[in-house]
Amino acid sequence: MTEMTNAAFPMPDPKMGEPYLLTPGPLTTAFSVKEAMLKDWGSWDDDFRAMTRSLCNQLVALAGGAAGELVCVPMQGSGSFAVEAMLGTMVPRDGKVLVLANGAYGLRAAETLRVMGRAHTLIDKGDYLPPRGDEVGRALDADPAITHVIAIHCETSSGILNPVAEIAQAVHARGRKLLVDSMSAFGAVPLDAGQIGYDAMVSSANKCIEGVPGFGFVIARKSALEAAKGNAHSLSLDAHAQWATMVRTGQWRYTPPTHVVAAFLEALRLHAAEGGVAGRGARYALNRDVMVAGMRDLGFETLLADRWLSPIIVTFFNPAHPNFDFQRFYQLMKSKGFIIYPGKLTVVDSFRIGCIGRMDEHVMRRVVTAAAQSLAEMGVDSAAPPAAAIAERAKLAA
Amino acid sequence: MTEMTNAAFPMPDPKMGEPYLLTPGPLTTAFSVKEAMLKDWGSWDDDFRAMTRSLCNQLVALAGGAAGELVCVPMQGSGSFAVEAMLGTMVPRDGKVLVLANGAYGLRAAETLRVMGRAHTLIDKGDYLPPRGDEVGRALDADPAITHVIAIHCETSSGILNPVAEIAQAVHARGRKLLVDSMSAFGAVPLDAGQIGYDAMVSSANKCIEGVPGFGFVIARKSALEAAKGNAHSLSLDAHAQWATMVRTGQWRYTPPTHVVAAFLEALRLHAAEGGVAGRGARYALNRDVMVAGMRDLGFETLLADRWLSPIIVTFFNPAHPNFDFQRFYQLMKSKGFIIYPGKLTVVDSFRIGCIGRMDEHVMRRVVTAAAQSLAEMGVDSAAPPAAAIAERAKLAA
Repeated sequence: MTEMTNAAFPMPDPKMGEPYLLTPGPLTTAFSVKEAMLKDWGSWDDDFRAMTRSLCNQLVALAGGAAGELVCVPMQGSGSFAVEAMLGTMVPRDGKVLVLANGAYGLRAAETLRVMGRAHTLIDKGDYLPPRGDEVGRALDADPAITHVIAIHCETSSGILNPVAEIAQAVHARGRKLLVDSMSAFGAVPLDAGQIGYDAMVSSANKCIEGVPGFGFVIARKSALEAAKGNAHSLSLDAHAQWATMVRTGQWRYTPPTHVVAAFLEALRLHAAEGGVAGRGARYALNRDVMVAGMRDLGFETLLADRWLSPIIVTFFNPAHPNFDFQRFYQLMKSKGFIIYPGKLTVVDSFRIGCIGRMDEHVMRRVVTAAAQSLAEMGVDSAAPPAAAIAERAKLAA
Repeated sequence: MTEMTNAAFPMPDPKMGEPYLLTPGPLTTAFSVKEAMLKDWGSWDDDFRAMTRSLCNQLVALAGGAAGELVCVPMQGSGSFAVEAMLGTMVPRDGKVLVLANGAYGLRAAETLRVMGRAHTLIDKGDYLPPRGDEVGRALDADPAITHVIAIHCETSSGILNPVAEIAQAVHARGRKLLVDSMSAFGAVPLDAGQIGYDAMVSSANKCIEGVPGFGFVIARKSALEAAKGNAHSLSLDAHAQWATMVRTGQWRYTPPTHVVAAFLEALRLHAAEGGVAGRGARYALNRDVMVAGMRDLGFETLLADRWLSPIIVTFFNPAHPNFDFQRFYQLMKSKGFIIYPGKLTVVDSFRIGCIGRMDEHVMRRVVTAAAQSLAEMGVDSAAPPAAAIAERAKLAA
């Protein structure tokens, strides 16, 4: 993969001296993505309207699906704002949602519904165990009031890639509607609208497309969005109203993050140049494989068996060694140019290393070297996890 | 004001060849503001937490008020998202809001309350007539159920600077609470918390502080915000929850627009270097005076008499001349490097020219020259408005 280091794969400018962000986003972006923010745009002007149109067209094309079937609704704010806009808009006020949770983002979807006062029920699988098609089917059979199911594509709390295809099958077999939070997977993991058949999905600018943070987007089946007028609990987070304004005027309803949009267009250009979802996904998978193999060589162990590992972010158990301290490890890694991410498991201590962003296998090898050096500096001669961690992991069969 | 053109007043880089944005924001920013976006930050990292802390401390200092009395809550999204967060958080579910409207932003506040299902009543003064203290007092006397009043500081629909001080007096004399939408005025027009006594106010990054768009902020009386827990209708737009998370962790609750925050810190530095609110306000006032005088010399007339003109944006009547066409005028002005703004009056045709952003009196003189040339190119030999416009204006005494 030597092409990764040449002009076809622009990297961050080393002159900036910034650490790599081994996190689930905001992530490390190409310098050219940031350079695209060096101009100001009038949000009312034709030039910017053309940028918005291009953004939406490219995202719809990325999502797949038949011509004219899908529409894209960018939404200001973080990804969670876009999730709330999707839920508040697509679920009628008298609807009921089955939330499939195995980590923080599933639970946040349930909390979003609770605050907005929409009926919902929860399958909570705990820290990482995946919701499976058969249990989703049983839950739907047991409660005919459920109109929608929301699934998390990649749950970055653990890094698991949830089985969205089998979930979709269970949902559609029972005539219910599927919503997908593909925040951290869209653009690198296939989620073909024709196969998965969602009513809407959501992602954001600063994930696998490798833009900078500032907006998310809902991709919805046009007919479903048209039917969603008046559902929303919020003026700002009304995806139908946002879309209707864009169709009518070509403008965002309220002030868009103009610079972030400009950066995203450059990020989309780089995404296409890398071969789209397949190319991006292949690089991330290689990032993961190189990094996981290296970390395992050091004695670290992953929470998940290989078949559940996403190419997005990987959870490692903290070593059992008494000298290991995560805060110290974090600072040592940062001093070597790498920002890692704390864990989110409730039962055992862990940390996470992201595979996404403007990084290739060469960078991932340096991550492993930095981890080895950091362990040595802490006086940790074994990265093996405690027995409790191994016992925890045994709950999920490979 | 020769200092405006030297290094103490960084301007956009002429190399970018971009037009000046004579709009109410997004606006023209200094090149150094945009350059601050050339790095990526981890939102969980200490470096970024320090940036957030600095941003909040500086905004609280700008707002004035006694030590420890005010807190700042940045909120992802556009300014309207922050307005919704302020209303949804500060107004209890059983509260009732008197909305003072004289343009689009007052009406939008009412629409926000309608969608979220909060009781409200409206004083609608039409396109531009200001709500006055005495009529606010009468409305409050007539309806003891009203708990809050929301006033628009500068209503950019017309460019009027509303009489917030007399409104505040009427509100406080009756023991009600004041909320202020100071979106386009904060940072250039004094709004001293000690004198105005608001429970909360709201503004955004891309207005008079001259940052780029991507977040807004609520500045609230700490005691009022503490009492607002659980009020919000939305998980994302809950200003109390956002604040509580920041106090506990130093982080934004959900992914912040990291690059936009970095740009804003540089914008705050330039704001302080210019002399804070007084210095910024003086430049904008001079921008307005030079531009309005020049436009009047050309025969254009303003909607508002001088005492109501804000230093933010000014509404001019379209000339009555049959050759005048706003779309053509817009394109001619754009071709000369200036993006102007359409009008929002419902009764007569108008356009607006903004005075805010990284521009000084020299730029404003060039705006006037460009307007003169554009008129000549259109074959418009008089910019005088139609009689209907003058009749409309007569409704508001100087």
